[in-house]
Order: sequence, then structure tokens, then C-alpha cells
Amino acid sequence: MKKNVLIIGAGGVAHVVAHKCAMNNDVLGDICIASRTQQKCDAIIESVLRKNHLKDSTKKLYSRTVNALDIPSLIDLIKDTQSEIVINVGQSYINMSVLEACIETGAVYMDTAIHEEPDKVCENPPWYANYEWKRKERCEQQGITAILGIGFDPGVVNAWCALAQKEYFDTIDTIDILDVNAGSHGKYFATNFDPEINFREFKKVWTWIDRQWVLQKVHSIRMDYDFPVVGTCPVYLTGHDELHSLSKNIDANSIRFWMGFGDHYLNVFSVLNNIGLLSEKPVKVAEGIEIAPIKVLKAVLPDPSSLAPGYTGKTCIGNFIRGTKDKAKREIFIYNTCDHAECYQEVESQAISYTAGVPAAAAAILVARGTWDVKHMVNVEELDPRPFIDLLDTMGLPTEVVESPVPFTPPVITSLESV
Amino acid sequence: MKKNVLIIGAGGVAHVVAHKCAMNNDVLGDICIASRTQQKCDAIIESVLRKNHLKDSTKKLYSRTVNALDIPSLIDLIKDTQSEIVINVGQSYINMSVLEACIETGAVYMDTAIHEEPDKVCENPPWYANYEWKRKERCEQQGITAILGIGFDPGVVNAWCALAQKEYFDTIDTIDILDVNAGSHGKYFATNFDPEINFREFKKVWTWIDRQWVLQKVHSIRMDYDFPVVGTCPVYLTGHDELHSLSKNIDANSIRFWMGFGDHYLNVFSVLNNIGLLSEKPVKVAEGIEIAPIKVLKAVLPDPSSLAPGYTGKTCIGNFIRGTKDKAKREIFIYNTCDHAECYQEVESQAISYTAGVPAAAAAILVARGTWDVKHMVNVEELDPRPFIDLLDTMGLPTEVVESPVPFTPPVITSLESV
Repeated sequence: MKKNVLIIGAGGVAHVVAHKCAMNNDVLGDICIASRTQQKCDAIIESVLRKNHLKDSTKKLYSRTVNALDIPSLIDLIKDTQSEIVINVGQSYINMSVLEACIETGAVYMDTAIHEEPDKVCENPPWYANYEWKRKERCEQQGITAILGIGFDPGVVNAWCALAQKEYFDTIDTIDILDVNAGSHGKYFATNFDPEINFREFKKVWTWIDRQWVLQKVHSIRMDYDFPVVGTCPVYLTGHDELHSLSKNIDANSIRFWMGFGDHYLNVFSVLNNIGLLSEKPVKVAEGIEIAPIKVLKAVLPDPSSLAPGYTGKTCIGNFIRGTKDKAKREIFIYNTCDHAECYQEVESQAISYTAGVPAAAAAILVARGTWDVKHMVNVEELDPRPFIDLLDTMGLPTEVVESPVPFTPPVITSLESV
Repeated sequence: MKKNVLIIGAGGVAHVVAHKCAMNNDVLGDICIASRTQQKCDAIIESVLRKNHLKDSTKKLYSRTVNALDIPSLIDLIKDTQSEIVINVGQSYINMSVLEACIETGAVYMDTAIHEEPDKVCENPPWYANYEWKRKERCEQQGITAILGIGFDPGVVNAWCALAQKEYFDTIDTIDILDVNAGSHGKYFATNFDPEINFREFKKVWTWIDRQWVLQKVHSIRMDYDFPVVGTCPVYLTGHDELHSLSKNIDANSIRFWMGFGDHYLNVFSVLNNIGLLSEKPVKVAEGIEIAPIKVLKAVLPDPSSLAPGYTGKTCIGNFIRGTKDKAKREIFIYNTCDHAECYQEVESQAISYTAGVPAAAAAILVARGTWDVKHMVNVEELDPRPFIDLLDTMGLPTEVVESPVPFTPPVITSLESV
């Protein structure tokens, strides 16, 4: 039994994690939210209290300031707050420092996105091997539970792969993870999470095809798919975190990720990208100031957390899996749909943050109960999926399974360069 | 007789002014090019020498560093270089300081664009009244020749209005200034002059309709016109400097300005504008740095002077003028076409810089000869146009006149607000 949760970060995902942890604080104990800007943490606490989500009012919900790149400060914070579970939902640049602080203090580590270095984009695959997995041995030696990528994608979609392997298939040929947001925020243009991290995803497309890494151009391969509930949407082959662990841990020939984009989004993205405004490389302006264009873009785009109140429509994220069971061909679509307005009604958030935040809170509960307190570093597909999926069913993210769904059959995808 | 020219600025227009002044330095005397960055001045000098354009090699062509917002430095520079003619082709923010230094030293002042303050955009009309015209009385008292807006538009198009009034019409009903660049620079996106100043033009559209100022939305009124040489191009009602003096000095009912834009340009412009990246108002990025988005955009876009070598195609700028002569209706199109590649061949520049720079050099010659040394502040339409037009005919910018051209008949343009 572990208890007391330290949430690092105060963005949209942290907001949802805080709500869901508070709603389960009889299991999780005290909750501290820490970030660079304490007032952002306090705004989350106000939302939790406004919604009357603090289940056990004898437990604490409070905020702290922290520089999450400063390992000694993090260690002090973990010790001082007596946190046994750390949920890192800050910017992707802080994973390694927070992980280090957990290893040093014995706390459980979790995150929802892969580590990145500010000046490097779309490094060579598998990405986890460049950073997190280098701490695998130390976690093993010191009995540290570290659960990597426990949001929705990566996260739930990884658990679905494990579930498919365990309960639905004898052999898996292809897994296509399809992620579409069929909602509308009503703004000219906005990203649903940190624009800086969002756009960094779209620099290169790494995909796992026939058990090899294949490199493709962004937004170059499009498929239309008739999704349950939200209907037909265009999706584009995209690089994504989860491929970088699933390719190692799941016995499948090809694992691809597809993200939905509308024409307007792609036009805006294309203009910004072609002009160089998505670049993380600093430019020097006439006045001598040096700054990365993407940081300025982030400053002018709507704050993702500001989108929640007016958001309408639904997201649909699912795994289309093709393989065999009992020597017969089998295809399933295992998915979740999530409604933006219902999320706002429940926790004052939109569905993108909701789907990323709820799984981390569910994992914290499983760790607190001991079910997932595995004492080493894992990606989600390495854990027993069933208790997680069952718990999510009760926490707002139910899993649906369709047998013999509308077929999803992408063209042959070739590599732009040998890798 | 005035002599010795000080060119302030080292951009694309300064480059052309320097070439054309050097080609006429038997009349103009010594030429000094001064800007913030001396190496940009020196690059221009190298181009002039490479093209063997220094007509009289006993005259000097040299560079200096100057902060053109620092009036005492400017005064020292004018005195030290014994310049009697100052051609200001730097950023629009420096007009008032350079003008002040000219008034203090007795030098002739010229510019090619209206004064702007960095933090103000598209102020109330007429724009000249907000800045330059406030120095009219001092120029008059001290016998200072100040020629405002002596590029192409403003500049040549103003002289054509004067020419029309003097030689072609008894009464003028409408003047439509049409400016189209039918050339191609081969880049994804670029502006032909300083992007910061370029985009500031497109915030509001002030137009002079039935002797009143009318405010319209940018790119909201489109007309297609079959131009001489370059053929049919779309043009959009746009605000522009020259309307702010022509409305006062030319007896016409309506004076409109139209600029050509292709669909790709408008799409990119629209994305950048809607997102807020054209804003001159500083934003604060997460790291605490404050910067105006447009300055970052400028840093990532191609340097306008880099476009010249590969530029193909032509510009066409003309005045469609409708009125009466000897009691009969008359319509003329008075215009110039300019070829990008020919400009590069001659002075290593593109046609946008060429058309803006040649008129300033021509005006300097007219001032040096005494023809235009009028000892007060004028806009171009207040000067005798004939010697100017005739001189341009010999300097690479010939004027053509078509009687009864293809009709240009815009719709009724109403104001978005009372002004």
C-alpha cells in the first residue's frame, strides 16, 4: 500500500488528475500539486473544491512551487510532502529529473508522455531507449515502480494491446491506433495540449512496419475511417510515443498510429511549418533577442485549458487489431468515445485532457492498492491490463469492443530512408 | 545647386538608390550610405563597384554607421559628410528623427514611405497630418526642401495624378491606383520589402470615397483587372500612404488603392493574421522574454534582398483615372511595367526595390539641378511632374499612357464605421 500523491505540473492534464485523485483520496491520501507557477496549482484546487470532489475531507489537497528540472528540490519536495506516488504531468522536458528524484526517494514514478530534450526533435527510435529505459536497471535494483506513458495514448491504447494479446488473439498481424477528435472548440486555431509539445510530434513520422522502423513524411498518408459514434473522419499516419515501446513488447508485425486532422488544421499547420514558425531552433531578431519561433507561437495561441468551457463534440480513440484466434482470422476495434461537454460538466476540463488524465489517476489507485506496484520500470503493455480497464470503466473512460468492425486497410507504407 | 548625397538605410531600396545615384554622381557629388550595420552598406558599395556604376571616379562612395533615431548623431553625420541631400530609405520609424536633423542642418529631406511609430498601426487619416505635416511650418520658415513619399507608390503615382490634372483632365472623378506584382520569387512565402512594414499596411483599409474617409476590412473587396503586359490579375482594396496626401492635394471625388494578391499569399497572410503573428504588440513567452510576434516572423521569412537573383516576371503599377476633358468623358490608364530579371541584370535588385528606389534618385537629381529644390515641405503631387516623368523615362521607369483602357469600375464602397 502506497499513499500520498504528488502531482507535478498544473496544465490541463494535471487538472484532471487532481480531480480524479481527489475523488479517490480515501485510497490515495494527501494530494500535493506542484509546478513553476503556484497560482495555476491553486486554480486547480479551487476547481476541485468547487465541484465538491474531495471525497475524504480529512485528507489534504494543497499546492507547492517547484522547478522540476532541479533534482535536489524535487527530492526535498517528495520527502517533505511524504509522497509515495509521483504523477509527472508537466512538460516532457522534466521526465528524467523527476524520475531521478523518485529513484533517489523510493517514490513511484508515472508520466503520460515521453521525455524530450528542448533542442532535439523526433530522435532515432525507439525513443524510450534514448532516455527512460537507461534507468531501467537502477529501478530494478532499487525496487522502484516506474510506469511510463500512462495517459490515453500512450497508456490505455497500450493496455488494449496487452488485452488483445491476452484475451482476443493467438497471433497479431497489425495494430492501427486511431485517434480522432471530432469536437469543436470554436476558435480559429488552437491545440488541445501544449502547442510546443504538440507540434514537435509532427516533424517526422516513425512507424513500425513488418518489424522494422519506417520513416515517412508528415501528413503524407491519409485514410478515411468510419468511426463508431463520431462517423467518418480523415486520419493521417503520424509518429507517436507508444509505438516506441509496443514495437518491443507486443508480438505484432506492424503497429501504426493515425491521427485525425481536418483540412483547416492541416492548412494552418502547413503554413506555420513551411514558414518555419514551428521550429524549436532559436532565431535572432533584428533587436538582438534570440528565441525559438515555436515559443512565440505558443504565446499567441489560446491556452489549451481555456478551450474547455465551450468545447462540443466527442473524441474517439481506438485500436483496430487484425490477427488470428483459434486458427481463424479475427478483427476487432477496441475503443473509447469521450464527450467534451460531459467532461467539462464533471471536472471543468475538455476531453483531450480528460482522456489523458483519468488513466494516470486510475494507475495511481492500482499502485496504491498494490495491484500495479511492480517494483521496476514498465511500459503500460507490460502490466496486467484487466484491472486497469475495469477500473477505467467505472471512472469515466469505458472500453468498447466491436468484433468485425468496418475494415481499416492502409496501403503499403515504404520508408523514405534506410534506418 | 545642391550636392553630396547621404543615403540612410541599407535595405533593398537603398541598394537601388545607391546604384542610380552613383550612375549620376557627376551631378550628385559624393555619396555616403549609412545604417545600423555598416557591412550591409559595404555590400551595396561592392555591388555598385562590381557593376562599374560609379560614373565619376573622382567622387567618393563610402559607408558610415548611424543610429537614425539619434538626432545629434544624424546632425553630426550630415555635417561631417557635407551632405546637402538626405535620402531616407531606412525603416519607417526613423522619418521624424531624420527630418529633424535635416531641418537643423539645412539639408534636403526625402523619404519613400510615411512615418510610423512601432506601437501604433493604421492611425486615423490623413496619416501625414499625424507626423510629417507637423513640421511643414518649420520647413517653410527655414527654407527646407522636404519631399515626402518619393518612391513609386507613393511617389510616381502621385506625380501621375498631378500630370493627369495638368495635361489630361479638366475635372477628375475617380483615381484608382492599381499595383500588381506578377512576378515569382520561387519561395514558399516572402515579402518584397521589410515584412514588418509590409504587414502593417494590411491592418485596416482607409479609402477616400466621395471626398470622405471610408474604413473597410482588409482583403474584403476584390476586382479583377486585365493589365497591360501582365494580363488579368486580382486586386484588393488596400490602404496606402499616397491616399493621405492625394485626398488633400488632388481635386477628385474618389481616390482608391488596389493591390494584387494571389490566393496562396492571401491564405498565408490570413493564417498568420488570424493567429496573431502579425501583431506589433509584444507577447510574453513562458521563459519571460517579451517580443512582438511580427519581429519573429520577420526573422524567419526570407530577407527581401535575397529574392533578387531568381526573381522572374514583371510588376505593373498604374493609375486608372476617370474624368472629363473639353466637356467630354475621358478615361486613361497611366502606368509602368518593370521586369524583375532586367532589374537584377542592371543593378542586382528586384523590381519592387527598383521601382521604389529609382524615383528617389531621380528626385535627388532634380533637387541637385534646382528644378525641385522648392524650399518647403511637399508631397510629390505638389511638384511639377513633367521633368520628373521625363527623367524617369531615361532612368529605367518609362511611363505609358493608354486612352480608353479596359474599364475599371469598382462596386459602391461603404464605410464600416463613421469617421
